[in-house]
Amino acid sequence: MTGTFIAFEGGDASGKSTQAQRVADALGAVFTREPGGTPLSEALRALLLDPAQHVALRTEALLMAASRAQLVHDVIAPTLASGRHVVTDRFLGSSLAYQGYGRGLDVAAVRGLSLFAVEGTLPDLTVLIDVPVSLAMGRLGEDLDRIEREEQAFHERVRAGYLELAAADPGGWVVIDGTGDVDTVASRVDAALASRLSVVDGIIES
Amino acid sequence: MTGTFIAFEGGDASGKSTQAQRVADALGAVFTREPGGTPLSEALRALLLDPAQHVALRTEALLMAASRAQLVHDVIAPTLASGRHVVTDRFLGSSLAYQGYGRGLDVAAVRGLSLFAVEGTLPDLTVLIDVPVSLAMGRLGEDLDRIEREEQAFHERVRAGYLELAAADPGGWVVIDGTGDVDTVASRVDAALASRLSVVDGIIES
Repeated sequence: MTGTFIAFEGGDASGKSTQAQRVADALGAVFTREPGGTPLSEALRALLLDPAQHVALRTEALLMAASRAQLVHDVIAPTLASGRHVVTDRFLGSSLAYQGYGRGLDVAAVRGLSLFAVEGTLPDLTVLIDVPVSLAMGRLGEDLDRIEREEQAFHERVRAGYLELAAADPGGWVVIDGTGDVDTVASRVDAALASRLSVVDGIIES
Repeated sequence: MTGTFIAFEGGDASGKSTQAQRVADALGAVFTREPGGTPLSEALRALLLDPAQHVALRTEALLMAASRAQLVHDVIAPTLASGRHVVTDRFLGSSLAYQGYGRGLDVAAVRGLSLFAVEGTLPDLTVLIDVPVSLAMGRLGEDLDRIEREEQAFHERVRAGYLELAAADPGGWVVIDGTGDVDTVASRVDAALASRLSVVDGIIES
């Protein structure tokens, strides 16, 4: 039986990385993060997030898809095929929210790049950790990467985009209120996973 | 008036780089090469051609398109808009021939990635320098990059792909016999350019 594939999505400082890592540990799943996760993808991550790097909008969208293609090919697809679960911190939804809704590229075109990249490997469930942008920005530290540095209006478009994506695909996405402390959010995540994915029932307490 | 955009295509060691550089000099055109031509694109070129790098097929196609997007955005589109000509050593045709025909990815899908990347900036004429693969491989030295190292059958598919692309678009492509010495090929290139592009008439002798 193939493994279950869970993607965590959300804005910067939404708390999604903490929740993704925790769920991966609880499930004994392989944990990945984007952009990154392979030697080539980490090299692309360094280029993409370097504040000194000038990256054209379409280049950014193509590089995110390239990083994803390598991660799926080398890690996600073979892991799922072997029967192990995979939990990822960001996946296709990030490209739609950031390069599509955030940057203003055509969302369908951006989706097309990623569908080419992933060759049919898509999450069984995408968990959106939603927090108001003002709250997230207050959590961000001083040492921001190239994308975190974007203005608040950009992050507002990203958040609105995520909520639109989740609303358009209620079977594939679940929205979790990301306000409150880590344990409070964790209990919301676990309840959602237990009710949506039979594979985690009994492993994660609802 | 916008500048004229000429792309040179062909297999490795076909002699196209020599011809492209010569024509760029004769026209006073800006010369570019792919992958590369901007700081970010050169970083991608280093990743793409490193024999030690493991690059999945779809990643390769996306990275070639990403490099192209940055080159078009930073150099080719603004140069043409300013009225200067551009001559490039490889462009969209290379992706179709190498990642499509050579690697076996769907040619229409690979074209779609590049059409996203170039945002309508396409060559006025693509010049294919065609030589038999056995001749080209004899010209290659010892220090081969990751793609040059591919087996002869790969290079045969690339050559056949190029000829198919040229045959399918006789208005956009011209095929030049690349056998013989540099001056012989140069005279063939110049005659073709003079007859196909009014802008080079009188600059390049036919």
